Amino acid sequence: MPTVTTSSHRRGPYAKTASRINGILDAAVELFAVNGYRSTTMKDIAEKAGISQPGLLHHFPSKADVLVALLRRREERALIRAEESEDLPPVDRILTVVRDVEDNRTLIALHCVLTAEATSPDHPAHEFFKTRYHRIQERATASFRHLLEQGLLKPGTDPARLARTMVAVIDGLHVQWLLAPESVDITAELRAFLSDHIVNA
Amino acid sequence: MPTVTTSSHRRGPYAKTASRINGILDAAVELFAVNGYRSTTMKDIAEKAGISQPGLLHHFPSKADVLVALLRRREERALIRAEESEDLPPVDRILTVVRDVEDNRTLIALHCVLTAEATSPDHPAHEFFKTRYHRIQERATASFRHLLEQGLLKPGTDPARLARTMVAVIDGLHVQWLLAPESVDITAELRAFLSDHIVNA
Repeated sequence: MPTVTTSSHRRGPYAKTASRINGILDAAVELFAVNGYRSTTMKDIAEKAGISQPGLLHHFPSKADVLVALLRRREERALIRAEESEDLPPVDRILTVVRDVEDNRTLIALHCVLTAEATSPDHPAHEFFKTRYHRIQERATASFRHLLEQGLLKPGTDPARLARTMVAVIDGLHVQWLLAPESVDITAELRAFLSDHIVNA
Repeated sequence: MPTVTTSSHRRGPYAKTASRINGILDAAVELFAVNGYRSTTMKDIAEKAGISQPGLLHHFPSKADVLVALLRRREERALIRAEESEDLPPVDRILTVVRDVEDNRTLIALHCVLTAEATSPDHPAHEFFKTRYHRIQERATASFRHLLEQGLLKPGTDPARLARTMVAVIDGLHVQWLLAPESVDITAELRAFLSDHIVNA
């Protein structure tokens, strides 16, 4: 069964790598939460993940790469949640994006700091964040345009503007929630914002 | 004329101190813009402001104190602009808050980074930012409540929620504008957001 063997061989290492990378990211976020991003070393991450430092450096040349991978993973998981909830009403589908907030305080705080730092044009992650925002904006605009075509946006709503404003609301609410978690309910606030624009929300 | 002299003496030093502090802050923001916040030293700020280092340390024990004073000054100036524009329609009055954005890129970027860092409960500026957000929120809520009483908010608008969302929109738009100044018009976006809630905007 040469074909099957090859295919199995091909899947094997990929799955193993993915699982190793997930293990590294899980270890990193736990260390960041307990000791802070700055105090955590690559040595700490390697130890916690149970791999050698060269093994870690093979996947992530620097701690900043670990952080960016964590942010990407969170985004990918949010996309998967959104895809899995296609049968929900539009507002509930969008709200799945912030469903993981309570479990990701550390990562969200790091995200806010890194985004703010990366607004500087000479920051190494500047292009990454610029592209990221552009991509998220485009994706949200496309979704809202689709809702508009289905008659689910309130009359006069501009899909691109709503996308920009929604992204701003989400970012801003994250800051307010990080500062005063007891007095900000991100899901409720975002639901109210979306209900101003989406029909039958 | 002892009374006049006393009064003049009393006013004199205050005015002189205020002018010296403004000079320090002007020097600091220029240095931050050119060399970055981290690379700027207290020595640089003292030199640029034309005062001694002990003189600088008398007013500002640390560089972080200089930054916080800059942020306070920007906020005070925004409040003055808002007070001076009481005759404008409500939306235009609110928009005076972001009127200085183009001239304050460096400060706004520093503000975003500092706010994000200060979301961590053990950050020295945590309480300052928590209080600041609370104060801004209360002030905005009071203004919106006033508009509601005058029949200038669209029916069903909750003043406190609108205040929270508006602050989030402003914060979020700042990040988008810092990342892509050419493609974000903060004033236009904020005007559109407010027009959804304020009558006759």
